[in-house]
Amino acid sequence: MRVGVIGGGQLARMMIPAAIELGVELRVLAEAEGMAAELAATAVGDYRDAESVLAFAREVDVVTFDHEHVPQDVLHALVDAGIPVNPGPDALRFAQDKLLMRERLSELGLPVPDWARVETAEELDRFIEAHGGSAVVKTPRGGYDGKGVRVVHGSAEVAEWFAALAEDGRPGALLVEELVEFRRELAQLVARRPSGELAAWPVVETVQVGGVCSEVIAPAPRSAGRLADVAADVAIAIAEGLGVTGVLAVELFETHDDRVLVNELAMRPHNSGHWSMDGATTGQFEQHLRAVLDLPLGGTGTHDAWSVMVNILGGPAEGSLADRYPEALSGHPTVKVHNYGKAPRPGRKIGHVTAVGSELDDVVYQARAAAAVFQD
Amino acid sequence: MRVGVIGGGQLARMMIPAAIELGVELRVLAEAEGMAAELAATAVGDYRDAESVLAFAREVDVVTFDHEHVPQDVLHALVDAGIPVNPGPDALRFAQDKLLMRERLSELGLPVPDWARVETAEELDRFIEAHGGSAVVKTPRGGYDGKGVRVVHGSAEVAEWFAALAEDGRPGALLVEELVEFRRELAQLVARRPSGELAAWPVVETVQVGGVCSEVIAPAPRSAGRLADVAADVAIAIAEGLGVTGVLAVELFETHDDRVLVNELAMRPHNSGHWSMDGATTGQFEQHLRAVLDLPLGGTGTHDAWSVMVNILGGPAEGSLADRYPEALSGHPTVKVHNYGKAPRPGRKIGHVTAVGSELDDVVYQARAAAAVFQD
Repeated sequence: MRVGVIGGGQLARMMIPAAIELGVELRVLAEAEGMAAELAATAVGDYRDAESVLAFAREVDVVTFDHEHVPQDVLHALVDAGIPVNPGPDALRFAQDKLLMRERLSELGLPVPDWARVETAEELDRFIEAHGGSAVVKTPRGGYDGKGVRVVHGSAEVAEWFAALAEDGRPGALLVEELVEFRRELAQLVARRPSGELAAWPVVETVQVGGVCSEVIAPAPRSAGRLADVAADVAIAIAEGLGVTGVLAVELFETHDDRVLVNELAMRPHNSGHWSMDGATTGQFEQHLRAVLDLPLGGTGTHDAWSVMVNILGGPAEGSLADRYPEALSGHPTVKVHNYGKAPRPGRKIGHVTAVGSELDDVVYQARAAAAVFQD
Repeated sequence: MRVGVIGGGQLARMMIPAAIELGVELRVLAEAEGMAAELAATAVGDYRDAESVLAFAREVDVVTFDHEHVPQDVLHALVDAGIPVNPGPDALRFAQDKLLMRERLSELGLPVPDWARVETAEELDRFIEAHGGSAVVKTPRGGYDGKGVRVVHGSAEVAEWFAALAEDGRPGALLVEELVEFRRELAQLVARRPSGELAAWPVVETVQVGGVCSEVIAPAPRSAGRLADVAADVAIAIAEGLGVTGVLAVELFETHDDRVLVNELAMRPHNSGHWSMDGATTGQFEQHLRAVLDLPLGGTGTHDAWSVMVNILGGPAEGSLADRYPEALSGHPTVKVHNYGKAPRPGRKIGHVTAVGSELDDVVYQARAAAAVFQD
């Protein structure tokens, strides 16, 4: 069993341990030397170049991804060559284009914020006016971790995005959405294999700081019952409706009036699922491999009542994460540390920690305190 | 942080996932191409050759082992070159020579079976006669998985071992031990770092078939209280008394009169500790890396009441383990499968499965049934 991963970041890296235990040969097409997944990197190349990707993919049983940026023409070249690709291009286009995603989810009758496709400043201003004077504007492509997303009160605040559309010469548009007043953010992860089997982990609460995930609590507090069911149903409907294979992450808003609205999608293991490596019977990286290989999925039960994951963002101003191990590990012997092997840099995700236990207050404290040791 | 592992078997292989998560660079000196730990193999060489081992070891921060067979002169060459070695030669000699081990444990006042050093057939026959007509004879060096161990009723049954001693020309001896009537076999694993910190997992019950470990139940049923304390105390006394660093496995007999006797030692991660990868806060491979790097040790609590590990011995008569995944994984979604990437061969350890849960009967059933799918 050989799985080829396009992209050599930390998500590809964290597939390696799961692959070793399952006896799967993992091969990574990395963007450059020295990336997080270097240990399994068998090729370095440009994922936008069909020839490089095809040469890599011909040697594996199935292709999957560290990110969603592989262009559609490259994906179709793989499919045309008879190479299994999970998730496939027809699913991935909804993760690559937020306008397409909004259109499709609306067609499927799934709960989404009010949204519109806007081609001109006038259209945008009309939407803003109709929604209380503010809105969220998104570039349909290329955004992640808060990039390509802006809260605005008028079209002038995204003038350069409209200008870029005009320069592009092709008919383009921006996505505008109502600014949802939410109580909190949730994420629902599911895995789906090509033959149709689905498995859902418990819905989790995610805490974002500056558009970047900072902390995840699994399961989301006060989610048992209706909320858990609704979140799982929405994610399963999306996985089936969009034909997703592998892990699907659905980011959700929980509104003050107890509605759940779909915010973003990711068709790959996701930061909001890292807790599952230490807190669930089957971690998301193992489940992703099982799903893309069309193997039966693993149990998604939890080891204990609560799991809390805290990202290590930036890391120490000087030295490496390992320099802080004596303090972090001695003070927090039950916390699991995950080091992505990346050099510290302000704002960069270079690792995470997870704590598991029966008392939420203590678990949150352990995870936050351990993560704090790695930050200046 | 760079750890060098001498030996490329499944124990080295299972250190790789732990190394990835901790951000440790693992380098393996393998005996040959295509071994279980191939992914991390940076060199192929003979572990009995001081020059090969030194060349490998000079590029790492600490050397540790997949097995205990590296000769003392090679180990001392590393120490003389200033390279940290965990466990060190002074500890390893007790794992390499069962006579030395018995002498040292007796000096430390630890509970061991009656034993003697025998140089002649007459000495052996006297020991057998004094112990009811049977005894266990062991070659002091080179035995594992039941090899070099024989239950005898007279010296003629090990005549060729005495002959080999005579041919050797050096003063040699065999180890003879009373045949212990035991209720069951146990194993106690601990980890110790060079600076002295110790951590013990719960004592486990091991089931041996033909001298080979077949099944492990963690914790050992009916061990809470005195038995758990005694087992941990004995292993800690051995780790400290013999100066062991890294993981130490102490195989124990529990006698019908509730005594605990030390059977064998292993100074490395051990088959009886595989359950900890899925059933404990800190698995033995992570703990071993932390210990040999002299980092603070991790918690040894369990995820649930019971963990059961069953070895996959031999595997299917035709095909690979992966061919059986559809049946094994769909029937047992909560069981964790570990595939060592080795070709099936009668009697060979090629993988193991672990189940975790609150009801022992069910956990035993799940693990045995899943393992059975992989055997013909």
